Amino acid sequence: MSPVVSPRAAFRERRARLDRLLGGPKLFVSGLSRPRNFEHNPYPFRAESHFLYFAGASIEGAALLVDGDRTALYVEPPTDDDALWFGPRPSLDELSASLEIEVRPLAELSPRSDTALLPPQDAETAFFLADLVHRDVEASGGDSLDGRDAALADAVIELRLHQDDAAIAQLRLAASLTRDAHRAGRAATRPGVREAVVRAAMEHVMLAADVVPAYAPIVTVHGEILHANAYHRELRDGDLLLADVGAETREGWAGDVTRVWPVSGRFSSTQRTLYEVVLAAQEAAIGAVHPGVRYLDVHRIAGQRIARGLVEAGILRGDPDDLYHRGAAALFFPHGIGHLLGLDVHDMEDLGDRAGYAPGRSRSQERGERYLRCDRDLSPGMCVTIEPGFYRIRSMLEDPEAIGDLREAVDWSVLDRFADVRGIRIEDDVLVTAEGCEVLTREIPKQVGDVETG
Amino acid sequence: MSPVVSPRAAFRERRARLDRLLGGPKLFVSGLSRPRNFEHNPYPFRAESHFLYFAGASIEGAALLVDGDRTALYVEPPTDDDALWFGPRPSLDELSASLEIEVRPLAELSPRSDTALLPPQDAETAFFLADLVHRDVEASGGDSLDGRDAALADAVIELRLHQDDAAIAQLRLAASLTRDAHRAGRAATRPGVREAVVRAAMEHVMLAADVVPAYAPIVTVHGEILHANAYHRELRDGDLLLADVGAETREGWAGDVTRVWPVSGRFSSTQRTLYEVVLAAQEAAIGAVHPGVRYLDVHRIAGQRIARGLVEAGILRGDPDDLYHRGAAALFFPHGIGHLLGLDVHDMEDLGDRAGYAPGRSRSQERGERYLRCDRDLSPGMCVTIEPGFYRIRSMLEDPEAIGDLREAVDWSVLDRFADVRGIRIEDDVLVTAEGCEVLTREIPKQVGDVETG
Repeated sequence: MSPVVSPRAAFRERRARLDRLLGGPKLFVSGLSRPRNFEHNPYPFRAESHFLYFAGASIEGAALLVDGDRTALYVEPPTDDDALWFGPRPSLDELSASLEIEVRPLAELSPRSDTALLPPQDAETAFFLADLVHRDVEASGGDSLDGRDAALADAVIELRLHQDDAAIAQLRLAASLTRDAHRAGRAATRPGVREAVVRAAMEHVMLAADVVPAYAPIVTVHGEILHANAYHRELRDGDLLLADVGAETREGWAGDVTRVWPVSGRFSSTQRTLYEVVLAAQEAAIGAVHPGVRYLDVHRIAGQRIARGLVEAGILRGDPDDLYHRGAAALFFPHGIGHLLGLDVHDMEDLGDRAGYAPGRSRSQERGERYLRCDRDLSPGMCVTIEPGFYRIRSMLEDPEAIGDLREAVDWSVLDRFADVRGIRIEDDVLVTAEGCEVLTREIPKQVGDVETG
Repeated sequence: MSPVVSPRAAFRERRARLDRLLGGPKLFVSGLSRPRNFEHNPYPFRAESHFLYFAGASIEGAALLVDGDRTALYVEPPTDDDALWFGPRPSLDELSASLEIEVRPLAELSPRSDTALLPPQDAETAFFLADLVHRDVEASGGDSLDGRDAALADAVIELRLHQDDAAIAQLRLAASLTRDAHRAGRAATRPGVREAVVRAAMEHVMLAADVVPAYAPIVTVHGEILHANAYHRELRDGDLLLADVGAETREGWAGDVTRVWPVSGRFSSTQRTLYEVVLAAQEAAIGAVHPGVRYLDVHRIAGQRIARGLVEAGILRGDPDDLYHRGAAALFFPHGIGHLLGLDVHDMEDLGDRAGYAPGRSRSQERGERYLRCDRDLSPGMCVTIEPGFYRIRSMLEDPEAIGDLREAVDWSVLDRFADVRGIRIEDDVLVTAEGCEVLTREIPKQVGDVETG
């Protein structure tokens, strides 16, 4: 894999665009590494996404001031102790030359009182930032911002919502690293091994390419657990394996792909039927991705297609559109069709629904729509996931309150015949283009005939 | 690998011993997961070590009250949403049966005002704990504790300092997982690949066994960078590769092993000479590990042996013991001989030098001794690492202040001949026994003749 490195001009251009959207000083911090079991045993440092977007460098404890001619990166100068423990660090001049931005010692940062900033991800970074700007800073979501901070959030969202060329190159790279990981996962699949073995094979590919997962990998024979984060179960012959695994590029951009394949290499007829229902829903949803289309409508198209497929399979009874509106699809597809994708796997979720939802829109209270993380009109340059699913979630299907008046809409004896399907999700990363969309992750096989395991 | 699971009686016994050492209520929290780039994309949760030690379970946001008959584990009861996103969770009764401890809802916790506690690892957990106990809690080290909190720290240190049978079984398991990882790392070593490829092979073994590294793996051809945390460099034919990599068991216990091997499979004569100096120092230090011996003296034995070896190699000039006392060994071996090992890779370092240093002892200001993380008299059940090294650290060797009056003690032209050695460290995990010690990691090859790479 040849390295894909964003040109420095991309970051300069992002900063200039931000200055045009919002004048005056804006400060971004990179954050601090978080302790694992004690201070000197931290998790791998990962800079805050807003900082990465405008600075293009991962430097712990740094601050980027964006303010026209005063724009500069502020960092701690290297010390002798750094050299001993962490190796020689570039001087500030060397850093400035390589990043093509003015670089100054952090101690010289003296921000104006009207400096705009965004909430950081943890309390330690909030203290760090509060110290820099001499005012209280909350580590919290973006929904409660006001004044210049709210204006900054809106400006950043406007920029990050539409991926520029450098970002698209990174998203393509993430897709290709993710493809390699999924290929290795299929090859490692065989009855008798544990989920951990497949997860390890997938993560191995990323680590060998010197990148890491963008989020905790889900690799499970219990796909009905939406965020399963254990890997101890054994793969058995009749199981479906669900792998929701994506790589993060060195610059921080995420891939996010789910595939499901049979442990034995062959779907049973019941598994194939429901897999094809989900696949048809996903294809219908991707087919609907087009500039001007509302993302909520893409979600509805997938949900309606699932309702229709489940009627055809005999699991639901009635008119598909009517069933969708009554929430019958949501019994089996309770989450949203997807979310924004970018530097964060749920892009800009740190800013709350301010990022995912267009101004004036808020979460629907409808069953099956309330978990939707995004409701914007699509436009070229936006990147979203499309990830419908089918799940038999016992706690929901046995809950009279969740079933409500849908008891008669489900043919429970037919559903029982699909006992070898617990959870299916098919997820791709989709870039909105002027003509419609491009599936960035199209090289990762998902047709029933594609299955080949080790 | 058959799973090694600590018997529930081990945790009951630990709690009972703690009650005997310090009466009254003691509260331990498990901690909260830390955000990576946003709240809902956290790092893998790792419970606080003190909690793991006494509770024997990794449950986020839980609190363990140890107080005789009132001892109980307090957790958030499972919700319907948990079931949807994270799968069915055991009821409190089921948890109680499996953990063999009373389990109650967190909301019922109402601790007495004299409840003793230890500082947690981050500010969010400190807030969480402060809310439970209705007093301020600092997320900070153990050196500044007072009153009952200080007494609790001392009692916990007294217990955790000497490993019980369950702990020793876990440390053996960690050693064996670490052995498998090192074996895979050697097999993946070949000229032309990047450090990341070897690191990936080592971590693959852990992930496939459903465990994780105990700390950020160091896998580098620049062993002179003590905590190198990059993996982008290419392995070349004449390089030594340094791998400081240890596994953590599912119950949280650490392995910590460093090996160095030649990328080509064969040491050069200069590499072999210095490798054997470090190996001899390590063997001398391990040979000195015995009940009643002061750990600082083990450090000095290693340092003196390194001074002697460097005199024999022609790099140092003079009397080895005199050279050691003047700090000449520390020019090439600047860190300490090792540290406590247990649930933390630097065990109980969250409590500061209160854990590593015996009462009344504090850090030496001597060059070469000030970085020593431990200075206690060894006794059976203590587990420490023994990890001398030799490094050519340019920033130190070119610093007139660091060299001081040692310029004439070094034969710089001889040193130049060892240019193909940048950093060597050899590290094992050693359990103090009644008779002397046992090297838990002895199965991981380190003799010059052992080398075999892919």
